[in-house]
Amino acid sequence: MSYLKNISDKELKKGITQFMETAPDIYMPGVSVDTVIFGFNNDKLKVLLLRFGNTPYFVLPGGYISKEENLDDAAMRILQERTGLQNIYLEQFYTSGNVNRSHGALTKEIVEKIVGTIPHSNWFEQRFISVCYYALVDDTKVNPQPEPFFTEFKWFDVTKLPQLLYDHNLIIKKALSRLQADLDEKLVGFNLMSETFTMAHLQKLYEAVHQKKFVRTNFQRKMLSLNALERLEKHYSGKSHKAPYLYKFLKANN
Amino acid sequence: MSYLKNISDKELKKGITQFMETAPDIYMPGVSVDTVIFGFNNDKLKVLLLRFGNTPYFVLPGGYISKEENLDDAAMRILQERTGLQNIYLEQFYTSGNVNRSHGALTKEIVEKIVGTIPHSNWFEQRFISVCYYALVDDTKVNPQPEPFFTEFKWFDVTKLPQLLYDHNLIIKKALSRLQADLDEKLVGFNLMSETFTMAHLQKLYEAVHQKKFVRTNFQRKMLSLNALERLEKHYSGKSHKAPYLYKFLKANN
Repeated sequence: MSYLKNISDKELKKGITQFMETAPDIYMPGVSVDTVIFGFNNDKLKVLLLRFGNTPYFVLPGGYISKEENLDDAAMRILQERTGLQNIYLEQFYTSGNVNRSHGALTKEIVEKIVGTIPHSNWFEQRFISVCYYALVDDTKVNPQPEPFFTEFKWFDVTKLPQLLYDHNLIIKKALSRLQADLDEKLVGFNLMSETFTMAHLQKLYEAVHQKKFVRTNFQRKMLSLNALERLEKHYSGKSHKAPYLYKFLKANN
Repeated sequence: MSYLKNISDKELKKGITQFMETAPDIYMPGVSVDTVIFGFNNDKLKVLLLRFGNTPYFVLPGGYISKEENLDDAAMRILQERTGLQNIYLEQFYTSGNVNRSHGALTKEIVEKIVGTIPHSNWFEQRFISVCYYALVDDTKVNPQPEPFFTEFKWFDVTKLPQLLYDHNLIIKKALSRLQADLDEKLVGFNLMSETFTMAHLQKLYEAVHQKKFVRTNFQRKMLSLNALERLEKHYSGKSHKAPYLYKFLKANN
């Protein structure tokens, strides 16, 4: 699912101006949260991105930490606001803090183009250190909520990302690297699968995350050796006996 | 190595007052860096801690990020200032951001006790989100530099830590957990060893980090199977032929 909405330049200007006026009272300065939301669909690993205003620029879903809010709670709140989902697998993986991480982001130019001359300090212009999380979701259940500044909510194939604002391309790269490790060590993959699945489908997930092909017999042997999968009895419902076995993960070890 | 120094309450008051006056102009607000510095000595895994002023309280070595300094550069600068070492293995592993992480830290009380009534805003009293790194050092080469607020620099056995200010005990626990994973996956252990070592000594390191005993033969088999160690030829220098083999790591894969 995704949404597309029209927003007039006037509405956008009003929304951004209002946000910049109130943000310093509500949020901690200098720290933001960004979330790489992964979904698995049509054998592809996807990432959810938002289009900023009426610009051609996409960004990661993110936000700020209220002054009296725990960091992890802020990350979960932002994720729930963006996806409409509860009980999401969410993992902090990196904090990005180069001085120039917003250079080339054109943020100031974009905001000024929309808002005009900024009479007060520009919230978006300050230096932000961003605490980054990745989330694993069933993308068919995501129900994106339209937001003031964003006009489009779109899943991108992780191998075909657009140029993003800030250092968000780098952040996705780091998230993927961490997901690859966690898939093998912490078996987090079940968060991206339906409850039951074939071995072939599971292999597609591992191939999409690792961005390489595996040999079927080796993959099956390795997966079964982990003792993490339960093979379901076949139901002889008149379907071909050659239907593949279905599996499910024994236990969420998150 | 360690140092102990005397500092008068007057000096301490002067130093802290001056720091609090200048810090807001120099550093980013709301974000700090903390570093868990691990060393391996006498078959024990150690952590370096600092005593705050003339109080009984120890803390992790840490600091703040200059307004024009990259986050990772700040972490390395702070580490070099604290240890006098260059080229240290340093790894970001966690960002701590609970609202109440400084509660119970008595920071305000401690500072007020030293400084008296604080006429301006107390830098230490603001909410900090702390980006945490761990470092692996050869503790015999550490040459701690005395600092304004700290009167003692001491290695503690990781299994016998004192009660620390802030959430620093929790941070060390998380650092140890990450070190355990990195020891197995990224073979970072050579940063804690002398250049050549016996298999028995290496086993002691793994046992100290994992806080459990390994069976000698199994440990040796597993280590050799990684193809990460080079066994050195024995030099027949008149010593017993029964002297154990020496090994070294083939390559730093950091």
